[in-house]
Amino acid sequence: MTVETKQVRFPSVSLDSGATIAPVDVAYQTYGQLNAQRSNAILVLHAFSGDAHAAGIDDSGKPGWWDNMIGPGKAFDTNIYYVICSNVLGGCRGTTGPSSINPETGRPYAMAFPVITIGDMARVQKMLIDHLGIERLLSVSGGSMGGMQALEWSVAYPDSVVSAIPIASTPRHSAQQIAFNEVGRQAIMADPDWENGEYYGKKPPARGLAVARMVGHITYMSDDSMREKFGRRLRDKEQFGYNFSSVDFEVESYLRYRGTQFVDRFDANSYLYITKAMDYFDVANGYGSLAAAMERSTARFLVISFTSDWLYPSYQSQEVVRALRSRNRDVAYCELASNYGHDAFLVDVGEQTELVRGFLASSLRERAHA
Amino acid sequence: MTVETKQVRFPSVSLDSGATIAPVDVAYQTYGQLNAQRSNAILVLHAFSGDAHAAGIDDSGKPGWWDNMIGPGKAFDTNIYYVICSNVLGGCRGTTGPSSINPETGRPYAMAFPVITIGDMARVQKMLIDHLGIERLLSVSGGSMGGMQALEWSVAYPDSVVSAIPIASTPRHSAQQIAFNEVGRQAIMADPDWENGEYYGKKPPARGLAVARMVGHITYMSDDSMREKFGRRLRDKEQFGYNFSSVDFEVESYLRYRGTQFVDRFDANSYLYITKAMDYFDVANGYGSLAAAMERSTARFLVISFTSDWLYPSYQSQEVVRALRSRNRDVAYCELASNYGHDAFLVDVGEQTELVRGFLASSLRERAHA
Repeated sequence: MTVETKQVRFPSVSLDSGATIAPVDVAYQTYGQLNAQRSNAILVLHAFSGDAHAAGIDDSGKPGWWDNMIGPGKAFDTNIYYVICSNVLGGCRGTTGPSSINPETGRPYAMAFPVITIGDMARVQKMLIDHLGIERLLSVSGGSMGGMQALEWSVAYPDSVVSAIPIASTPRHSAQQIAFNEVGRQAIMADPDWENGEYYGKKPPARGLAVARMVGHITYMSDDSMREKFGRRLRDKEQFGYNFSSVDFEVESYLRYRGTQFVDRFDANSYLYITKAMDYFDVANGYGSLAAAMERSTARFLVISFTSDWLYPSYQSQEVVRALRSRNRDVAYCELASNYGHDAFLVDVGEQTELVRGFLASSLRERAHA
Repeated sequence: MTVETKQVRFPSVSLDSGATIAPVDVAYQTYGQLNAQRSNAILVLHAFSGDAHAAGIDDSGKPGWWDNMIGPGKAFDTNIYYVICSNVLGGCRGTTGPSSINPETGRPYAMAFPVITIGDMARVQKMLIDHLGIERLLSVSGGSMGGMQALEWSVAYPDSVVSAIPIASTPRHSAQQIAFNEVGRQAIMADPDWENGEYYGKKPPARGLAVARMVGHITYMSDDSMREKFGRRLRDKEQFGYNFSSVDFEVESYLRYRGTQFVDRFDANSYLYITKAMDYFDVANGYGSLAAAMERSTARFLVISFTSDWLYPSYQSQEVVRALRSRNRDVAYCELASNYGHDAFLVDVGEQTELVRGFLASSLRERAHA
């Protein structure tokens, strides 16, 4: 199926920081049909570098980032469900972010863009859901930062969420997760082409952004999956080059490729703002404890983590499960065996598909009988 | 005890690459007294960013990098043993490296310095040991890259090694270890101040080197130790700054400090060359298999790893142990419980001290009766 990205403009949004962004454009895609009772809508939430194109094929022929999970007969079965995905606030793929025009200056916001939070992202998504005339979502689901948004939704808008599926995620960023993000930010800001964010229309901080992305890719894979994919295999040579002008190892070539490729599709300032939003994220913020926060939710939960994911380790998902159980909330948890590390929620979806399909079906049934 | 760094010059060294470096200066320190039989000498091998100053206090008042392990009554008891530590080939702390003067040009080698290997480092250390009139070392020991050198010594110079103690190390760099090093190299080479290595006498690539070091520090600590040391504690503030001009989290402040501090004591080109040497390292190179390589060694081994070390995980030390056992070599292995991650061999030395002390005492006894 070929899909198109729609866009809607809202007059303004008030942020956790106290600042306001006006106007706010939101880029989104939808798959499947909203039923008459408007009871089959699912909001899918993308990870750090994702966008609204979650499923189907866009006009450039590119499949969506979760196309193996969303579509006819797939986990998020578009013959049954109406699936919505929007680019996050602060992004660079159609939703207002630092690369958008600041109406006050007529030039891109750059670093004049206010610092945003996961809560602000959810606030804008709530505007979109209201705009689409949907009162309650059958489910909110996403992996990684998408899972953080799912948790935020279930706590901030409990009356609007029937079920939630946070995958390979966390209730709060740990010191190590903040540290990896900070390295990426420092790599970007260390690039003289960054120019305090004022690089639009000029040379972007391509080298810094590429280095930041290389760090990211290491954390998305597991030690095992890197060994299986690259090992110590050399790149186009029988023996070491004994120089710095040529690449020695396949893994070096892969990282360089991924780094430079990323520059073509992602804005460096969005990298700064979105990673900051992740670092600020603690779903317990303002509620005193994680349990007190999760108690606000009336949704039923399916929490999924992966054995080899060391960036968002299972213990973080288990904290959410314990908090929900401690307040007698309805939660199922599965730690899936996978060698793919954090990437598993995107690439190793066999068992994940069965779990999500069953959970959504029962959520739809319960809602019908509610 | 106040210690001084000595230096010795050798006419030349032939490298694994086929290149030659001439002359070669080696900076080293010694602790304790060589006995009459010359049977109590131990070569301590430093990790990536270490130097010859392993123990005691130097003239600047700085303690050695393993001062908690080397000294009177310590694990490497200088009342009993004669301990030697030298800066590695390619380094920037007194041993010839890319920042040294190239006699052919009268200017620093920079990228004209030949690519070196762990084998080349050991070759230069062997020259130093010969120069000191020592035929056989009672032990070779080090952590991380120091452990790689200890393994290399036991295989390349079996007749010169009575015992070996590789700690938190590996028989070969994995794809993930190569990947982390490659990120550091790319961060340095992406810094315009790097100028293809020709920055001597000018501004060094401080920003790139700092980013590289920040990545390193994350990998040296464990998720747990970062949580215990920093958690989500904010830096000099009660609430988020909602800006990019101030630091939010303590862990960000720590990484920035460590990164900038590193620039004052380490040469960026040495970073490139030494990480490349580590990536090239596979002790099995040229021997067909790890078991065939380790079979060459006649030394007795004490292999140590740490539970929370995810940069040099225990399974890598266990590969060495299995290889030695498979050829009926004498090896003791201990995986020590520590939360300190890879840094444990430097900071969590209580149990390590007992193990090393006992192992060295028995090695000395066996040698006396041999």
